[in-house]
Amino acid sequence: MDHEAWLTNSIMARRAVAGGKPGSRHSLSVEAQGQFHYVYGPYVDPKMTIDPGDIVVVETEDAFGGVIQSEQDSPTAKLNFPFLNPQSGPIYVNGAEKGDCLAVHIHAVETRGAQPAGTTCIMPEFGGLVGTGATALLNPPLPERVRKMHVDKDGVRWSDKIVLPYEPFIGTIGVSPEIEAVSSLQPDYHGGNMDLPDVAPGAIIYLPVHTPGGYLYVGDCHAAQGDGELSGVAVEQRATVTLHVDLIKGWSFAWPRLETKDFIMTIGSARPLEDAARIAYRELTRWMAADYGFDEIDAYMLLSQAGRIRLGNMVDPKYTMGASILKKYLVG
Amino acid sequence: MDHEAWLTNSIMARRAVAGGKPGSRHSLSVEAQGQFHYVYGPYVDPKMTIDPGDIVVVETEDAFGGVIQSEQDSPTAKLNFPFLNPQSGPIYVNGAEKGDCLAVHIHAVETRGAQPAGTTCIMPEFGGLVGTGATALLNPPLPERVRKMHVDKDGVRWSDKIVLPYEPFIGTIGVSPEIEAVSSLQPDYHGGNMDLPDVAPGAIIYLPVHTPGGYLYVGDCHAAQGDGELSGVAVEQRATVTLHVDLIKGWSFAWPRLETKDFIMTIGSARPLEDAARIAYRELTRWMAADYGFDEIDAYMLLSQAGRIRLGNMVDPKYTMGASILKKYLVG
Amino acid sequence: MDHEAWLTNSIMARRAVAGGKPGSRHSLSVEAQGQFHYVYGPYVDPKMTIDPGDIVVVETEDAFGGVIQSEQDSPTAKLNFPFLNPQSGPIYVNGAEKGDCLAVHIHAVETRGAQPAGTTCIMPEFGGLVGTGATALLNPPLPERVRKMHVDKDGVRWSDKIVLPYEPFIGTIGVSPEIEAVSSLQPDYHGGNMDLPDVAPGAIIYLPVHTPGGYLYVGDCHAAQGDGELSGVAVEQRATVTLHVDLIKGWSFAWPRLETKDFIMTIGSARPLEDAARIAYRELTRWMAADYGFDEIDAYMLLSQAGRIRLGNMVDPKYTMGASILKKYLVG
Amino acid sequence: MDHEAWLTNSIMARRAVAGGKPGSRHSLSVEAQGQFHYVYGPYVDPKMTIDPGDIVVVETEDAFGGVIQSEQDSPTAKLNFPFLNPQSGPIYVNGAEKGDCLAVHIHAVETRGAQPAGTTCIMPEFGGLVGTGATALLNPPLPERVRKMHVDKDGVRWSDKIVLPYEPFIGTIGVSPEIEAVSSLQPDYHGGNMDLPDVAPGAIIYLPVHTPGGYLYVGDCHAAQGDGELSGVAVEQRATVTLHVDLIKGWSFAWPRLETKDFIMTIGSARPLEDAARIAYRELTRWMAADYGFDEIDAYMLLSQAGRIRLGNMVDPKYTMGASILKKYLVG
Repeated sequence: MDHEAWLTNSIMARRAVAGGKPGSRHSLSVEAQGQFHYVYGPYVDPKMTIDPGDIVVVETEDAFGGVIQSEQDSPTAKLNFPFLNPQSGPIYVNGAEKGDCLAVHIHAVETRGAQPAGTTCIMPEFGGLVGTGATALLNPPLPERVRKMHVDKDGVRWSDKIVLPYEPFIGTIGVSPEIEAVSSLQPDYHGGNMDLPDVAPGAIIYLPVHTPGGYLYVGDCHAAQGDGELSGVAVEQRATVTLHVDLIKGWSFAWPRLETKDFIMTIGSARPLEDAARIAYRELTRWMAADYGFDEIDAYMLLSQAGRIRLGNMVDPKYTMGASILKKYLVG
Repeated sequence: MDHEAWLTNSIMARRAVAGGKPGSRHSLSVEAQGQFHYVYGPYVDPKMTIDPGDIVVVETEDAFGGVIQSEQDSPTAKLNFPFLNPQSGPIYVNGAEKGDCLAVHIHAVETRGAQPAGTTCIMPEFGGLVGTGATALLNPPLPERVRKMHVDKDGVRWSDKIVLPYEPFIGTIGVSPEIEAVSSLQPDYHGGNMDLPDVAPGAIIYLPVHTPGGYLYVGDCHAAQGDGELSGVAVEQRATVTLHVDLIKGWSFAWPRLETKDFIMTIGSARPLEDAARIAYRELTRWMAADYGFDEIDAYMLLSQAGRIRLGNMVDPKYTMGASILKKYLVG
Repeated sequence: MDHEAWLTNSIMARRAVAGGKPGSRHSLSVEAQGQFHYVYGPYVDPKMTIDPGDIVVVETEDAFGGVIQSEQDSPTAKLNFPFLNPQSGPIYVNGAEKGDCLAVHIHAVETRGAQPAGTTCIMPEFGGLVGTGATALLNPPLPERVRKMHVDKDGVRWSDKIVLPYEPFIGTIGVSPEIEAVSSLQPDYHGGNMDLPDVAPGAIIYLPVHTPGGYLYVGDCHAAQGDGELSGVAVEQRATVTLHVDLIKGWSFAWPRLETKDFIMTIGSARPLEDAARIAYRELTRWMAADYGFDEIDAYMLLSQAGRIRLGNMVDPKYTMGASILKKYLVG
Repeated sequence: MDHEAWLTNSIMARRAVAGGKPGSRHSLSVEAQGQFHYVYGPYVDPKMTIDPGDIVVVETEDAFGGVIQSEQDSPTAKLNFPFLNPQSGPIYVNGAEKGDCLAVHIHAVETRGAQPAGTTCIMPEFGGLVGTGATALLNPPLPERVRKMHVDKDGVRWSDKIVLPYEPFIGTIGVSPEIEAVSSLQPDYHGGNMDLPDVAPGAIIYLPVHTPGGYLYVGDCHAAQGDGELSGVAVEQRATVTLHVDLIKGWSFAWPRLETKDFIMTIGSARPLEDAARIAYRELTRWMAADYGFDEIDAYMLLSQAGRIRLGNMVDPKYTMGASILKKYLVG
């Protein structure tokens, strides 16, 4: 994946300290991690320190910390709020300072652990088509339900009849805010629980740095997910994640950005959902104006014809959307 | 297009009165239309009466009624609210009654009129990244701007450097409500100004009937549009629209539905945007439960992994989203 | 009430055609009304024609059309959507044209009909703390429940222990849109189902005219209501409403306004709720700038310290808020 | 104020460890505070430790940290995000544990410091009637503007013509979350930047404890504020705040609650605004059911007639509303 031609012309290759070239390889195993984290914040010591360009292989837990082990398990009985969505890291990147940007090229997200490796479930007061703690209603909840699935690179065995493609991605990734410690359930300007399927092997995500070393966290990998993560839960899995981490000095912006072979994307998280779309599209408008020669209003008009938007989640404390435009149109 | 194999197995072919087979051919030219309509309602006489299965070729106006003719035109000076988004029709379908459903297979949407045939613009207080009449703010408006483009089946000539593919669709289509007369600027349960690019040649849209004859209206064709119709305006064009209209007796539901070769889709319109997504996904959940053998909660869980959602508009009085699932997964 | 001193200095007295002085008195009884209306629109003949300054005594139906007669009645069995919230009128006001404004001074709202005259209930998919047709969820509904109450001017006998004050107001009042026919369940720029308790005896409501004669409709009186009309239903009652209707030529604005002895208010209806607040407050800012000598930004800053906002409904197709400022601060 | 009769029957008096009786008196001066805090979190040492029943007199900074000193100051030049809204504390309450609740009776909020002691301003991308970082738009911003005012207990001298009553309250107060460190600009389940005028002298606020000692923070006092804090800024002031802090063991709930002589209130913070209303009203429904003998659906129906809701802010990262009911109706 990291040898694809487009990478040599990626923003990472052109602007990052190590030029997008791979450096040393590190392993952050479950054992090395020890305790996982449940907030994205600066108030802990890093688990690992790396140089720009280094590759890190991280063993992540699933969003449930692995405690939902059978279809007979009750999520509410097993889960212990707020200790949900355990995160690996933080990883300290030498030289990263506020005003810089981490470039993280995702090499691989591989299923880890015993089968059935995939888990999804229905939990009370959580999900896109039920009342929640925020959309606080008096209706009775849905019944809890757990589904365990065999997952490997050939697919997600949803049922005897339905096999979904294995389209893995990282549900939660980001850096530390400057002074806040944000729940790993929440997506925001720092990244976090965006649940956006574009954060997948092959893509490069750009994360503006707020604190020395950046403090990269990662977790919550999904084997498959629909737009919106409708029930609040994807096909959750433990994973082995391979990340190539580089550093771009003096490049900063308000929200995470993403690049693939074909498009550039900006990611916004907010409620109501239109505000997530507005953030994502405004950031894209500004990016086109700053780096691709567009007049801002022309960029706005062009996105009205050629912009694409992907719904990540419509279930987390903030909803996430990614707005994109094909690179071939970036000729303002 | 209407000879594709999948059509013989479409819902239209299996359930409609004329079995999806084409009947007589009618023409609703601009001259035959005479006055256009600016509401979807039952308070006018039909312009044409057809039988189930008939094909209608409709000449539609563009959303501006054709008055923005040069890049020097001021939209605010030329446009006369509420007489915007002129609609052709209504077409009375013999036998259609409340509780039935029109099946409209879109055969073609062809650019009509002199070049430059495509128009887009920036208008004050309208669009996804500006304050509006509803998101009522004190900020100064953006300046007005008009762009006229050559459009034909080979593409939309946005600029010397950028040619967008010609991906036409019908921005506004629907039936009459039972007693309301709804502005043609608004999408809702009756269809209307959904601005959803899936309402395109090749697709079949299913519109539940609320009033005798159904009263089908159509207008506002777009040559290209991004997700969300960000600036509020797509590449607007006059068009010749070919519709194959059939009738399904005794099939009714709350919101428009759509079928293509590969997927089924439900369409919701609401504010805030998450409510559009909720409507669309709940309708899809219920459809899967009613017609495809799924337990409702299983359908909900599967959509969390395999559902897709498309943002139509984030600019109209209600925002529109279409939720879909591939037909190959409809094996509950 | 109409003899209070403040009235002689009201906008109605200072600007209206009849100077706020009462003219002829008319009666629009249930018998004279005949069929009630379920949309606010121009597509019917007026039930009565009056001159500016005339007084009209209207007998209104309750929001259920009177069909919920006992606590054993099932609302879903009795009600026939969309024939809900029957409206009296329309009343044609001689001389009213687009660009003018009706001034309606509410003299009285008196309970009408046999006891128990007050009705409230729980209906499925309707209300502020349940999933609805728009906030479309999969949760099971609440059970239906009906409560009938003795209501007179001394109070609303909620239970043996609780008597609420009789604080009547008009839930639904407004004029016809120019070309739309809007469901009487919906509030919007034309007034309609605002469910705002300030629309009460003693207040003057100002309604911009969109169609010749204005076409004043009224119905849906409440004996008492909390902020938000939380369950979707107030203490609904049949009422005798006394309205003093005058006409202000050449005064127009985007949304209804209201005046009492102590304050002026602007009314906005939208979803999400913050947009209703934005509309109301922007209209108030502009009104202060246009008529009371404030710089617009100074008005905005002052409202940040002295503005008041009342939640009308958080249950109708649009939510309604009224923003107000005390007259004593209108010295910009 | 603390000698009023109702207090002896308050929840604080009936349930708290010290029975609502005043203990020792402490002073947390600006000097004792030293560094202020910009997050509500557990990752710092307490500034003071007290026993249940103790009284603390706290000197608070204004929301700008005092740096806006003249009407010629530019807020954007002077302010250093995220170091806004400095908070005093945290105060450790002996015996407080997760599952308990702090009861904080507000004795006084007195203006502190040199005149003009009141400050308000317009800042770009912040406020209820402008585009913001979340409602991200392309419109140009409003110009910055600062207003300084003489403030004392006799009033807020807005201008030569307008004097607003001195109606002080605490804009930001709360406890630490369990593991999060939340920006002091944000209101949430832990309290924080609610900007709700009911949090005023005479009221008791009840804050559920999430971490040992509770960690009470306070700051951001306002001399006056309208509903919604429309421009994003109230009449900001440095203040001397007198708090009587007690502890209720084993009483916990999801969101802050408040009690006055006449009513009980529940406070919700969320976006969109209707979710803040839903949270507040659901919490109130549940409180009425848990402690006042109501069937939950009866409580819901009664609130539909007798509930009151106050808009705190419509400008912060979450919007805040307080739902209340008069104590005289709490006879379910």
